[in-house]
Amino acid sequence: MIYLDNAATTYPKPTEVINAVNKSFSLYGANPGRSGHNLSINTAMEIYSAREKLNALFDGYGSEFVSFTMNCTYALNMAIKGVLKNGDHVIMSSLEHNSVLRPIYKMKNEGLITSSVFTVTHDVEETISNLKNEIQDNTKLIIVTAVSNVFGDILPLEQISKVAKENNILFFVDGAQGAGVIPLKMQKLGINCLCVPGHKGLLGVMGVGVILHDGCITETIIEGGTGSESFYFLQPQNFPEKLEGGTLNVPAICGLKKGVEIVSSYGVENIFKEETALMKMMFNELSNMRKVVLYRNEYNEKMKAPLIAFNIKGYHSEEVAGFLNENSVAVRGGYHCSPLAHKTYGTEDTGAVRISPSRFTTKKDVNYVINLLQKIAKNKKV
Amino acid sequence: MIYLDNAATTYPKPTEVINAVNKSFSLYGANPGRSGHNLSINTAMEIYSAREKLNALFDGYGSEFVSFTMNCTYALNMAIKGVLKNGDHVIMSSLEHNSVLRPIYKMKNEGLITSSVFTVTHDVEETISNLKNEIQDNTKLIIVTAVSNVFGDILPLEQISKVAKENNILFFVDGAQGAGVIPLKMQKLGINCLCVPGHKGLLGVMGVGVILHDGCITETIIEGGTGSESFYFLQPQNFPEKLEGGTLNVPAICGLKKGVEIVSSYGVENIFKEETALMKMMFNELSNMRKVVLYRNEYNEKMKAPLIAFNIKGYHSEEVAGFLNENSVAVRGGYHCSPLAHKTYGTEDTGAVRISPSRFTTKKDVNYVINLLQKIAKNKKV
Repeated sequence: MIYLDNAATTYPKPTEVINAVNKSFSLYGANPGRSGHNLSINTAMEIYSAREKLNALFDGYGSEFVSFTMNCTYALNMAIKGVLKNGDHVIMSSLEHNSVLRPIYKMKNEGLITSSVFTVTHDVEETISNLKNEIQDNTKLIIVTAVSNVFGDILPLEQISKVAKENNILFFVDGAQGAGVIPLKMQKLGINCLCVPGHKGLLGVMGVGVILHDGCITETIIEGGTGSESFYFLQPQNFPEKLEGGTLNVPAICGLKKGVEIVSSYGVENIFKEETALMKMMFNELSNMRKVVLYRNEYNEKMKAPLIAFNIKGYHSEEVAGFLNENSVAVRGGYHCSPLAHKTYGTEDTGAVRISPSRFTTKKDVNYVINLLQKIAKNKKV
Repeated sequence: MIYLDNAATTYPKPTEVINAVNKSFSLYGANPGRSGHNLSINTAMEIYSAREKLNALFDGYGSEFVSFTMNCTYALNMAIKGVLKNGDHVIMSSLEHNSVLRPIYKMKNEGLITSSVFTVTHDVEETISNLKNEIQDNTKLIIVTAVSNVFGDILPLEQISKVAKENNILFFVDGAQGAGVIPLKMQKLGINCLCVPGHKGLLGVMGVGVILHDGCITETIIEGGTGSESFYFLQPQNFPEKLEGGTLNVPAICGLKKGVEIVSSYGVENIFKEETALMKMMFNELSNMRKVVLYRNEYNEKMKAPLIAFNIKGYHSEEVAGFLNENSVAVRGGYHCSPLAHKTYGTEDTGAVRISPSRFTTKKDVNYVINLLQKIAKNKKV
């Protein structure tokens, strides 16, 4: 099987990551931060070390401001609901995933907050102007994805951050598709909170997400045992415990630590470069196929993460994905939990086929898929 | 090392569980419920099979009413905040963990709800009478732990459920310490919602909890991508997706499925019997040591899960746990995220040493610990 659905979860995982998970079952098998025996303390130290690696990779505000969740969606819920209060206004981009859209619409639906969407185009100036138009006196937060999970657009984070800072607005980033793919430096980019999944670009296994922040998260949505301040009836206010109720997902965190080490030592820039070369090659081949729609005229790698969304005229994206699956190629078709993005690109009817590589993807894989797509793009019907 | 901190997390995990986790990295390595390719579909089927096993073990209301979370605390937050609304009253027992106490106090602190605590004693009639005294017209929910995480008390679930039903009140159970240790049959016991951790009595790895319910959960605290109803801006209302935003913790769920298979085929009653025999033996030996305080006069296995909480006069519980740790025995001392339980038993000053076995604990282990404790219980100071 040629797996090109890495934007959903990277597959396979590096052997080193799987080994780290396995090592955790013996070396870090106790509940960290609960008991005082050696196994528990060793586990807590390993978890802390994972916080340090993540803080370093993302230029965070300190290891104590790195908390672990089940996935990026949980992290985003904690972030959004951790700062928005009754009467606040929030702005998001037109490329947001349901993990940002739905928590915001839940709060909106309850009459707590108001929200606006600014349209992201291929022109940065226009995008920023669209953003500025949405700012209100009560705008508390601007939240954007770093990379569109469907179309791969890289958002102009530096410029968006500048607007946020100028208007004294918090700036949060959904790193679901950006982490481990493009450099995300919190302090440098003025990001107040960054949420990332462990199991995509960071090469960890499924079951862990991370919320990194600068201390701005005031409210919690999960409270429980933290192993600290046992007699305090409310959630402790110190980080990282404040955002970590209950037992941590230790094996997944240990795997993630190794994934972060691999990504950090190889370099996000190098991963980007390699995957971009493959996707450029695919883009160029696809743009020669008459029936293929690619949703951009050229491959501008400054504004595009290495993934390709396309359709073939006359087919629903699910049909194309099904045809590839029958030929042992795994991609995602249909809708991608991102209704605004599909509206922005006009793919509400067909969805889109998404091809997303990882560092394990080869030129041979890409050529195999190109050959397959040539067949279907030529035929009248599969 | 002799590990007797299984109430924090069971250790070691069965080899079959670790193998199941490892198998998942190749066989179930895609994101379930997202894409339509074979690897994603196979993963989704494996996850569904885990729901079925859990539903069967706990006599649940159907596999669609089994949702996965990061841990039991997340599940309890979803349960409590999923039903309590402005103006509601909730009753909890005096043995609740911070995972129940803190979400309730958060809502109370915000002025949304009111709450009462009923005292659990060693007399069931008295306990039930205490419960009845707390019922108000606006009582929406009674929530209790199945087993005290500190002192091992088994709560009279059947009688509590009867009171709840008679008063048309929802009945939720925190199965953190009860799952896989005592039989918890939801339909038989009239439990509307049961929350359990995957990594304790169910022998899974850390990183997964489960919420099982009868459909009573109306509100969500986490919203996000579910791979379903992509164009619906609010969280889908169908279960299990409603309670599962974002990517599932697939490897931990695959391990949990195997853990549940092991527990189900061996029989919860048999596990209870074996562990109880060991703890009875320890209890009897400890009750012969003059300086040891055991917080009950006799070992009544009908009201006691197989774990022992004790103190040695003249020592703080942390000192005793530290002494055991130096002698390669892992137990938990101090406080156990359960302030009400410590108040109920009058251990606010010393905390308690907790010895908790698993199915891997042997008679030899127990004897080793008894010998060690004899030394410290005789000496003036360690």
